[in-house]
Amino acid sequence: MQTIFFENTPRIIATGTIAGPKECAGVVGKCVDKTLTDDMFGESTYEKAECKMLSYAITKAIENAGEEQSNIDMLISGDLLNQIISASFAARDFDFPFLGVYGACSTLAESYAIAAALLNAGYYKKIVAATGSHFSSAERQYRYPLELGNTRPPQSQWTVTGAGGAVIASEGSPTAITSATFGKVVDFGITDVNNMGAAMAPAAADTILAHLKETGRNADYYDLIITGDLGALGSRILKDLVWEKGVDIQNNHVDCGEIIYKVIEDEFQGGSGAGCSAVVFNSYIYEKLKRRELNRVLLAATGALLSTVSSGQGESIPCICHAVAIENL
Amino acid sequence: MQTIFFENTPRIIATGTIAGPKECAGVVGKCVDKTLTDDMFGESTYEKAECKMLSYAITKAIENAGEEQSNIDMLISGDLLNQIISASFAARDFDFPFLGVYGACSTLAESYAIAAALLNAGYYKKIVAATGSHFSSAERQYRYPLELGNTRPPQSQWTVTGAGGAVIASEGSPTAITSATFGKVVDFGITDVNNMGAAMAPAAADTILAHLKETGRNADYYDLIITGDLGALGSRILKDLVWEKGVDIQNNHVDCGEIIYKVIEDEFQGGSGAGCSAVVFNSYIYEKLKRRELNRVLLAATGALLSTVSSGQGESIPCICHAVAIENL
Repeated sequence: MQTIFFENTPRIIATGTIAGPKECAGVVGKCVDKTLTDDMFGESTYEKAECKMLSYAITKAIENAGEEQSNIDMLISGDLLNQIISASFAARDFDFPFLGVYGACSTLAESYAIAAALLNAGYYKKIVAATGSHFSSAERQYRYPLELGNTRPPQSQWTVTGAGGAVIASEGSPTAITSATFGKVVDFGITDVNNMGAAMAPAAADTILAHLKETGRNADYYDLIITGDLGALGSRILKDLVWEKGVDIQNNHVDCGEIIYKVIEDEFQGGSGAGCSAVVFNSYIYEKLKRRELNRVLLAATGALLSTVSSGQGESIPCICHAVAIENL
Repeated sequence: MQTIFFENTPRIIATGTIAGPKECAGVVGKCVDKTLTDDMFGESTYEKAECKMLSYAITKAIENAGEEQSNIDMLISGDLLNQIISASFAARDFDFPFLGVYGACSTLAESYAIAAALLNAGYYKKIVAATGSHFSSAERQYRYPLELGNTRPPQSQWTVTGAGGAVIASEGSPTAITSATFGKVVDFGITDVNNMGAAMAPAAADTILAHLKETGRNADYYDLIITGDLGALGSRILKDLVWEKGVDIQNNHVDCGEIIYKVIEDEFQGGSGAGCSAVVFNSYIYEKLKRRELNRVLLAATGALLSTVSSGQGESIPCICHAVAIENL
């Protein structure tokens, strides 16, 4: 069994989000707590801006929950930067324990799953789980210096500049995390680092199928099965892969990367990065859960577990997907 | 409360370890499952060798537990490489879910704490937690290419080439994980990346003091309070820091980095790296627990949460320490 069940139904009591001007130009942006006009956020480097965004999202989530920082038991966070420095340096701002995790762009779902597991067991009362990413820090770490002005291939995605997180607590909201399915590492041999959607789609299919089988649910149990950053191409591949296994998610699947940008064509396949699901879920989707326009959501965030070193050494891209079931009770 | 208690006392039922020739020359080496004669382990790169060591440790721990891989519920792992590629690529070899974590050299204790929390709650029955590091991959990632032949400063440590892990299960051995104390990020403003011991000692002191206070225990409750890789200098600083708070660990504290190498002077302050506590705890210390030469051990592993980017941008070194109480019941 990859799935664990949370009988004490830990609740997402509030979220906090921040994103760049490009990310906030679309429908998602209307629900974001703070829109940056300058993606440097007053800092001298992209990395420091990314860390400051994450710190903002954590602080804002606690504030939106009407909580004091002294009531928070733990921060669970990670990010895409080497040695997850955004998370570690953001954690320095807070006087509660820190659990560093890494799941690339699946980090949000991974953090929520661990938070829910710890809360459900009664170890803690209130945990903040958050993540983020920054287009410019990701580009220069994973790809090329922006100054080179490289042409982007049509299958590429655009790393989201933004951060988001939530206060998850043992009670205090109708929106509960009812189960989590931890993913296995899946590697279909894709080596094109510009085609993350294709690399990650099999991992998403693997975890979603395991989740449905182990919970005994049909795909239409969920109002929405939302992936993190497969993008337009990856999303189509996912639908095909699960269709081959007899599961139809044509009508209730959407990808955070597909909906974050206003004019998706400009960003080719859409948004990506740990911040993608962090911003979209914690603003737009959580708003819909609060308004009961959505009541049952499966958040299945995927991560590509490569590095520039592994790619340089000719390795393919191992991927993972962690899923959390979020339901209004 | 930073500490959580495991009333169902999850057990460390078996360990698996592997280390390089230098690491196995001393007293610790006698207890290691496999000693490498060549630290490339038959691979073409240091990173691939590191990943292969980690995969070996996981496989060996499962074998030593007399278990089939199909009975393992989850792997919890992380490492020092960018995007924890050793852990992610090792996880590709196994058909169970993977939870990626990052706590730098505190990763072993962090993994054990999460594993114990998940087992204690009854979510799973058997979890493998493991980590490792490689001198040569760490040197070239964090410092300089080995080919430069840089002189090492006297306060520096030597990254351990090795990996270790354990099968932690709901039952099956007298050796239990009885509680875990998750650490806060502590930053005393140290910027010297060659002086990790001094940077990390305050984090170790913070977590050890919190653990003793929250469990209501005196330091002498433990036969051994073992840190991960403070080294000789960091260990002395830790003893002083807790002494100032009225806690005496002069007689029952030892550091894994201090005991791994045969002739400590050659390696200046001793061993470091995620593999340091992974190898020492899972071989030498676990053997002593099995033989009941030790019965109560507090494993308090520290991590320096920096990256080359954060150092290059003038940041100091935030550190963390996670502790797990391991007792023969």
